[in-house]
Amino acid sequence: MNLIIDIGNSVAKLAIFDKDELVEVFRGSNHSLDSLPMLCSRYPLERGIIASVITLSNTIRRQLDKLPFKIIELSHETPVPITNLYKTPQTLGMDRLAAVVAATWLKPNNDILVIDAGTCVTYDFIDAQHQYHGGNISPGMRMRFKALNIFTDKLPKVSAKGDIPLYGQTTETAIRAGVIRGMELEMSGYISLIQKNYPGVLVFLTGGDDFSFDTNLKSIIFADRFLVLKGLNRILSYNDKL
Amino acid sequence: MNLIIDIGNSVAKLAIFDKDELVEVFRGSNHSLDSLPMLCSRYPLERGIIASVITLSNTIRRQLDKLPFKIIELSHETPVPITNLYKTPQTLGMDRLAAVVAATWLKPNNDILVIDAGTCVTYDFIDAQHQYHGGNISPGMRMRFKALNIFTDKLPKVSAKGDIPLYGQTTETAIRAGVIRGMELEMSGYISLIQKNYPGVLVFLTGGDDFSFDTNLKSIIFADRFLVLKGLNRILSYNDKL
Repeated sequence: MNLIIDIGNSVAKLAIFDKDELVEVFRGSNHSLDSLPMLCSRYPLERGIIASVITLSNTIRRQLDKLPFKIIELSHETPVPITNLYKTPQTLGMDRLAAVVAATWLKPNNDILVIDAGTCVTYDFIDAQHQYHGGNISPGMRMRFKALNIFTDKLPKVSAKGDIPLYGQTTETAIRAGVIRGMELEMSGYISLIQKNYPGVLVFLTGGDDFSFDTNLKSIIFADRFLVLKGLNRILSYNDKL
Repeated sequence: MNLIIDIGNSVAKLAIFDKDELVEVFRGSNHSLDSLPMLCSRYPLERGIIASVITLSNTIRRQLDKLPFKIIELSHETPVPITNLYKTPQTLGMDRLAAVVAATWLKPNNDILVIDAGTCVTYDFIDAQHQYHGGNISPGMRMRFKALNIFTDKLPKVSAKGDIPLYGQTTETAIRAGVIRGMELEMSGYISLIQKNYPGVLVFLTGGDDFSFDTNLKSIIFADRFLVLKGLNRILSYNDKL
């Protein structure tokens, strides 16, 4: 079995895969992976991979050193089953790389836009020839709510739960509609832009935050919360067979 | 002549109007209005108005008290020449109110969307019957760049100047394109949304940040950097005649 670790800006996700099948997912602190000993005793783990968008803490480094099997630390030097056209691969977030690897593995004959709505929203494009073209980064939903509160004098901290009118008529609904509808328009806009050049493009939406889209977009959007984990597992299997 | 003061989250703007004509604009600190004595000696000021989205500093209060004429502090209780349908007028940013007053004064027979791209981006809708329906708030351009840097471990502070590809192929271009293109798609999306219900809607774009739009949108967008100041001057004149 495979141990997959995805360290994000907000949380760490640990997953167990049996070959290509996702068995279980755990979420926890991105500073310490305290569930590792439990996972090692519960599952017959044989190999692992870790990807991080933050500098790994010394605690995590020590915890990884104690694992009874080799773990790949995903970097721009790790072989991957796609062609990476990014000009500065050493600064590419490994979660973004993993997400496009998973998308193109799940839909190998399609041009694909991957939208990962987490701490940041990333938009990444990989074509049907498995060439990753690059992508964009904008602030995630919670980051937008937080920034409006912290970087202004009077705006309150608003949460995603509640009414989302077309136009807010209170500060709370103005901010909630402003952030969430703004992100939906941003995402729909990217999809429309890319459809002009790649009419058959499919869209993978991952990352945990929920958004609503027009009916005409819904048919090409695949929601998959575990895209990054699946991509990491795919990269691990690919390297195991090299 | 009229003295107009607009205190924002980032800067203060002071403007001199001769009746409806904008004579001069000054930008400065939003904590202290040091140019006031100079303005009073240079122009024959007779009345003034101040609007603020932050709590006025004691320094500014003392500076205002020394003015040799009465200054209106714009609040939700100040009479304005539009119908305000906002449910919590006491929490409505007075800059937003001023912007829709100016827009509907400049184009009195049109439904209008006002987009103010400053510290925050605000989207406010006023119909041809001069009824303000409300609006939305999302993070402004500098706020998005700042948030990506401050609220993540590894993303750098990126500025607006430089290449904006369709897809970034470096972290810098991914962030610049992500923020700016994302905002353009958000804005275009709002315009398209509102055009469905109000086909003849006009758009005023104000606030200082520059954005690019499709040719088919350009024809209905009026860029006006001084919309808030013009609206405050309009409210001042309106109250002077009451």
